[in-house]
Amino acid sequence: LSYSTVSSLGEHALIARITGRLAMPPWVVVGPGDDAAVLQPKRGAYDVLTTDALVDGVHFDLRFVPPDAVGHRALAVNLSDLAAMGAEPRAALLSLLLPDSLDVTILDGIVDGLTGLAARHRVALVGGNITRTPGPLAIDVTATGTVHGRRILRRGGARPGDEVYVTGALGDAAVGLRHLQQEPADRAGDAYDACVERYLRPEPRVRAGLLLGRNRAASSCMDLSDGLADAVRQVAAASEVGITLDAGALPLSDGVRQWHERHGDDPIATALAGGDDYELLFTVRPGHRGRLRAAAALMRTVPITRIGVVTKDRGLVVRSGTATRDLPTGYEHFRAG
Amino acid sequence: LSYSTVSSLGEHALIARITGRLAMPPWVVVGPGDDAAVLQPKRGAYDVLTTDALVDGVHFDLRFVPPDAVGHRALAVNLSDLAAMGAEPRAALLSLLLPDSLDVTILDGIVDGLTGLAARHRVALVGGNITRTPGPLAIDVTATGTVHGRRILRRGGARPGDEVYVTGALGDAAVGLRHLQQEPADRAGDAYDACVERYLRPEPRVRAGLLLGRNRAASSCMDLSDGLADAVRQVAAASEVGITLDAGALPLSDGVRQWHERHGDDPIATALAGGDDYELLFTVRPGHRGRLRAAAALMRTVPITRIGVVTKDRGLVVRSGTATRDLPTGYEHFRAG
Repeated sequence: LSYSTVSSLGEHALIARITGRLAMPPWVVVGPGDDAAVLQPKRGAYDVLTTDALVDGVHFDLRFVPPDAVGHRALAVNLSDLAAMGAEPRAALLSLLLPDSLDVTILDGIVDGLTGLAARHRVALVGGNITRTPGPLAIDVTATGTVHGRRILRRGGARPGDEVYVTGALGDAAVGLRHLQQEPADRAGDAYDACVERYLRPEPRVRAGLLLGRNRAASSCMDLSDGLADAVRQVAAASEVGITLDAGALPLSDGVRQWHERHGDDPIATALAGGDDYELLFTVRPGHRGRLRAAAALMRTVPITRIGVVTKDRGLVVRSGTATRDLPTGYEHFRAG
Repeated sequence: LSYSTVSSLGEHALIARITGRLAMPPWVVVGPGDDAAVLQPKRGAYDVLTTDALVDGVHFDLRFVPPDAVGHRALAVNLSDLAAMGAEPRAALLSLLLPDSLDVTILDGIVDGLTGLAARHRVALVGGNITRTPGPLAIDVTATGTVHGRRILRRGGARPGDEVYVTGALGDAAVGLRHLQQEPADRAGDAYDACVERYLRPEPRVRAGLLLGRNRAASSCMDLSDGLADAVRQVAAASEVGITLDAGALPLSDGVRQWHERHGDDPIATALAGGDDYELLFTVRPGHRGRLRAAAALMRTVPITRIGVVTKDRGLVVRSGTATRDLPTGYEHFRAG
């Protein structure tokens, strides 16, 4: 078994190592290996573009996150952004900042995780960039997709009276991460396996976003990358409305309930503030419930839960029975104090 | 005068600081502030996509490169890639990896440099991402543009007998960088100002690339980001041909000649290996010289120089009078030894 670091290979060899494993669909006119990629546009559709970076030690930790999960997440967070616009993903660019000492098998694992998810969503990896860094490993992915004009899901479309929904369950990724961060000896068997998997390899809600846009069931939509509280705050701000959530309605998995029973803290706080879930938050006009039922019927395994209502009053509130509290601020990256 | 670091502001405040200064053209359907940007495609054109990252300490050094030049270069290197495809730039995404201790005025300077160049090329900054990093400042820009199918400039189109050309002069950026790296006391007045400026704020050859593609004057094209020798090697490999360069024909500025006279080393070596020039290397069929003259007449201030010929023999050679030598390997990022 040979062990080599990325600095022992040349940049061209590293690029060839990645591009050698890629297949290109016919609408990729120029793929990797030229100055830029050239794509045939999809007729009648708009182009959708997003970029998101993951940094070792900030967004993941190579000490307990396997390389394939790093690659998977780097693409998933971008596909989640496309899903939240109602867009169909098409292509991605991969920009890698590699420390000299990185083992090339880690790089291989990252690429495998990324291309595996890409293949399942028919996303072509059409280009990218590799550079060395004296800092930690960072992976910056740009994803592009298409959407028809009337199907765009914006954050700013919620109106008073709309009902608030989420896909999937909340807080799984946060519990999965906390479980991974514990010493292996402290880990309680495989009770939290599902949560750990949700943290490591989140499934972007691409099909759900497409379906919500296709029949215009949703009046607004956003993904939960920074947690429910943050997303509620952003949709409310963009739509110039308030939102009242029903704490009892928040969908919690068995793993999340079990974790909080064991640790004696509040699962609602985790559901509100926990990041990395990559579910979709969306609003639906009361008259469009039929559209939502039609879309939900096609999503099959993706649960959809009504969790609140949009209000004219600009307050952001969480109701538990008759008690109410203000929505927590949510996790904001980058604030130190 | 208030001094603050990026970590003292929230992520939302940092984003607002950038997006508050942006104006959007009408074809930007959704700009910054949603999950992704949505662009109206240009009719009949293909989409062109490229990404390139700059890392402090690797691609620039904040100790002697002003912030606006960092922002300028981060966009310029991407526009240069689009130019080398014959594409018209349209939009960019800005992904920032910021150390906690970074002064926000440095961030402001970077954004000013980037948006200044963007405005001159009518590029809309439609989105991006900000994250913190325990490593050095890194700026990853993705640029997108459009090109008509028959105007795409690829690396692989050179044929034996084609003539080899470059825009501008070679080695300026390398000399500018060496001059900047010297102690201020060692700097010889402003004799190298033009070289320093070419290093700090390279002018991507967007118009030249468009003109070479528009009338199909060029049979292949690539930008010189990693130096002439590297570009010659890549074009020859992609086209499955050899290339012979004429050392005496390589265009050298007064600054480059003066630097080498003073330091007693070979300006040809700098012209071949020096990176960061962001000129275009391209080939022209002998029968298409008229097209090249027509394109060159419209470029006005951009010099074009014939520097060699494409050969059937796969050798890569530099000729000086009657002597020949092999093309040097050129600078390759990332090789440690």
